[in-house]
Amino acid sequence: MRLPTLIPLAIASIIHTATGAPAPTAPSSVITTTKITPSYWRATFSDPPFNIQGNAFFRDFYTLVDEITSDPNVKVVVFDSNSKYFFSTHVDLINTLDPDLYPGNPRYWDSITRLAKAPVLTVAAIRGLTYNAGAEIAAVLDVRFGSKEKAVLAQYEVGFGANPGGGGIELLSRLAGRSRALEVVIGADSIDAETAALYGWINRAIPDAQFEKFVDKFARRVAGWDHSAIAAAKNLINGRTGFPTADEQIESFNSFLKADAPGGLVDRRLKAMAAAGMQTNLNFEENFGREELKFVGNGPWNA
Amino acid sequence: MRLPTLIPLAIASIIHTATGAPAPTAPSSVITTTKITPSYWRATFSDPPFNIQGNAFFRDFYTLVDEITSDPNVKVVVFDSNSKYFFSTHVDLINTLDPDLYPGNPRYWDSITRLAKAPVLTVAAIRGLTYNAGAEIAAVLDVRFGSKEKAVLAQYEVGFGANPGGGGIELLSRLAGRSRALEVVIGADSIDAETAALYGWINRAIPDAQFEKFVDKFARRVAGWDHSAIAAAKNLINGRTGFPTADEQIESFNSFLKADAPGGLVDRRLKAMAAAGMQTNLNFEENFGREELKFVGNGPWNA
Amino acid sequence: MRLPTLIPLAIASIIHTATGAPAPTAPSSVITTTKITPSYWRATFSDPPFNIQGNAFFRDFYTLVDEITSDPNVKVVVFDSNSKYFFSTHVDLINTLDPDLYPGNPRYWDSITRLAKAPVLTVAAIRGLTYNAGAEIAAVLDVRFGSKEKAVLAQYEVGFGANPGGGGIELLSRLAGRSRALEVVIGADSIDAETAALYGWINRAIPDAQFEKFVDKFARRVAGWDHSAIAAAKNLINGRTGFPTADEQIESFNSFLKADAPGGLVDRRLKAMAAAGMQTNLNFEENFGREELKFVGNGPWNA
Repeated sequence: MRLPTLIPLAIASIIHTATGAPAPTAPSSVITTTKITPSYWRATFSDPPFNIQGNAFFRDFYTLVDEITSDPNVKVVVFDSNSKYFFSTHVDLINTLDPDLYPGNPRYWDSITRLAKAPVLTVAAIRGLTYNAGAEIAAVLDVRFGSKEKAVLAQYEVGFGANPGGGGIELLSRLAGRSRALEVVIGADSIDAETAALYGWINRAIPDAQFEKFVDKFARRVAGWDHSAIAAAKNLINGRTGFPTADEQIESFNSFLKADAPGGLVDRRLKAMAAAGMQTNLNFEENFGREELKFVGNGPWNA
Repeated sequence: MRLPTLIPLAIASIIHTATGAPAPTAPSSVITTTKITPSYWRATFSDPPFNIQGNAFFRDFYTLVDEITSDPNVKVVVFDSNSKYFFSTHVDLINTLDPDLYPGNPRYWDSITRLAKAPVLTVAAIRGLTYNAGAEIAAVLDVRFGSKEKAVLAQYEVGFGANPGGGGIELLSRLAGRSRALEVVIGADSIDAETAALYGWINRAIPDAQFEKFVDKFARRVAGWDHSAIAAAKNLINGRTGFPTADEQIESFNSFLKADAPGGLVDRRLKAMAAAGMQTNLNFEENFGREELKFVGNGPWNA
Repeated sequence: MRLPTLIPLAIASIIHTATGAPAPTAPSSVITTTKITPSYWRATFSDPPFNIQGNAFFRDFYTLVDEITSDPNVKVVVFDSNSKYFFSTHVDLINTLDPDLYPGNPRYWDSITRLAKAPVLTVAAIRGLTYNAGAEIAAVLDVRFGSKEKAVLAQYEVGFGANPGGGGIELLSRLAGRSRALEVVIGADSIDAETAALYGWINRAIPDAQFEKFVDKFARRVAGWDHSAIAAAKNLINGRTGFPTADEQIESFNSFLKADAPGGLVDRRLKAMAAAGMQTNLNFEENFGREELKFVGNGPWNA
């Protein structure tokens, strides 16, 4: 647990526009949970259109992980989105992020690690653009299904001058291997569902017309099995394949923080991107990978 | 070698319907070997329609492994099936399994490890349903080709309350990675050939009309090379990629045995499944992944 | 660094037709470098039609690696070919190879290792046949894109009696895993672009009509990013995924040398293949995987 080391850096650099106001403590509901049965839950990212990961998102996420890891009945949780554009996108780069909530905090690494080890199968049902922290949350889940026509994944961080810092490098490297991780992260461009499936970033791409039925059938099968069998199988597969260590992920996070020093290039660039439409303009967010070209490099910007 | 530890558990739990009769010792021929040339053998699973892995199967398999690993001429062995429905299916869950033969016995781990390390390329030519122990035998072989239309792979064990115990978790995890192994094993559903190829579970899916010609051409190429070059290449690739250790595989097997305790849920469920058609009814075996839904969970069973 | 051990063997075995003449020291230009911008270079294999790797190739390659790893501006280097048939093929098996230049020399392992670790993204743009040492050079690069119609990869070494010795076994095993590496290396046959993409040997196969635009756009994106972000991302991904050690690669190389002893079977076979058209006849080189069948095995040769 490196909180004492990380917090000061994080306060200085992540919270670009910190107002000093206390973090909200009221209940929030940007992740809504539906218990279809006691064994089969849907967790829906519900902050359309962007599903940006701000304080409310992380508060809800940590609460949900606590619920999943302590409920004796739940066997499968499908994560989806109520936005027709995005599964989940980046962390809130404009508003204050509570130091106790933001990714990079030990609470984040602890939550995703517990989730990966829980005797519950977690499933990402991806039907929209999924990038940066959004792609990292998806990669944390056990299984990822993508709509062939609608799912798009990306790690755009190199495009604005940093590297993925929320575990994305560790998770993607394990799923896709060296050469494809290098392409995705350094190319910093959108990856369609079929390519993401080829790379192992998602399990498979399913035609959108069959998507919901496929996911629901899969989840109902899992929910119908014995909890002990699911737990034994997941425990054994975890033992054979591992999960990135917090230390590995913190190395990437610290590298991210170093790039994102206050007043530095990334900081100023993100502020300019915010002024240009980031987090407010749908077109900007949908074309994040192209829009950020305007703030780096030498053009032309029709690339 | 953990035989003393494993045997009592195995006797107690695997041999559900043990009659006390001695295991058969007569020669059997449920795996028939054809030496197309001294260098190119075909080993055919020949116990149609199910190719269930009982005493005769394991006796033949161990004999075949001994022959392959001691013959100085053989360079490539293609494993196929004379059943038009199945490549190979589960272990015999009804009749007595000789403790000296059943998987989980050190003889099993020793045989598959010697085969993986032998200076001979083994090839699974899969044109039917291949599941549970059958999928595990296929995964033990060096290379797997599947008919695009006819090959279907599965590990259905979670569906009746256990986990794959014959090395399947270890082999599949290496071939397909964490997320896809979790989907296959915990989803416990049929995986078509193209998806199995996407996941790396089989090398590739080949249109059935071209399948035999492709496999035969591949085997003849290998059989035509110098034995020393095949041996050197396999030895080096084995060194770079490893093979699951017996200890890893035994951990999964012991977890399987724990679920499958005599008189317990899995034991009773398998008996009920036997009464419903398992090992006797072709439709039951072909739809194993759906049939077992009727013995667990809450329905409806048309999922 | 095992030069003292390797050199004598290498002199004895690689340089089949050594004439005793000193290696050429004049500048060569079989790899031509075009600096499209200071950040975006193209390195073109320019010794058509075969792009065989002889003294000039290795001299140019080492020089290029020195330039890439010492230039503060370069961010991306695309390697392509000016031959319409080949990306890059085998090492020169007829003419004298300078012991200080040939693969297997510490200089080779050092150069490819520095390139893999450099804060620059290297890209193979493959539109032709790419085999043996050519496939090994491609696999050394960070990212590989292949023309769907024109890219073909192979490691044919087992076909003439040796094993891949230039790191190919190590690189391919990491990209494709055990079963597919065994198929590729021991099958010793041509692998089309889509299969190579399925196996992870190339990142993806792109329709040839879109190939150049795709690669150029990708390279321009990378060249437009901040150098520090590219460097941080590559450093982290390298840390998560590793790169074969020189010791691993030297083990394969020594195994290759052992097969290729002077006056031995491989030596005599390569001389016969040279007499039959290797390195001079386009049809022979384009059908290398079939032609070599005529010098081993038992036929028929229309396989």
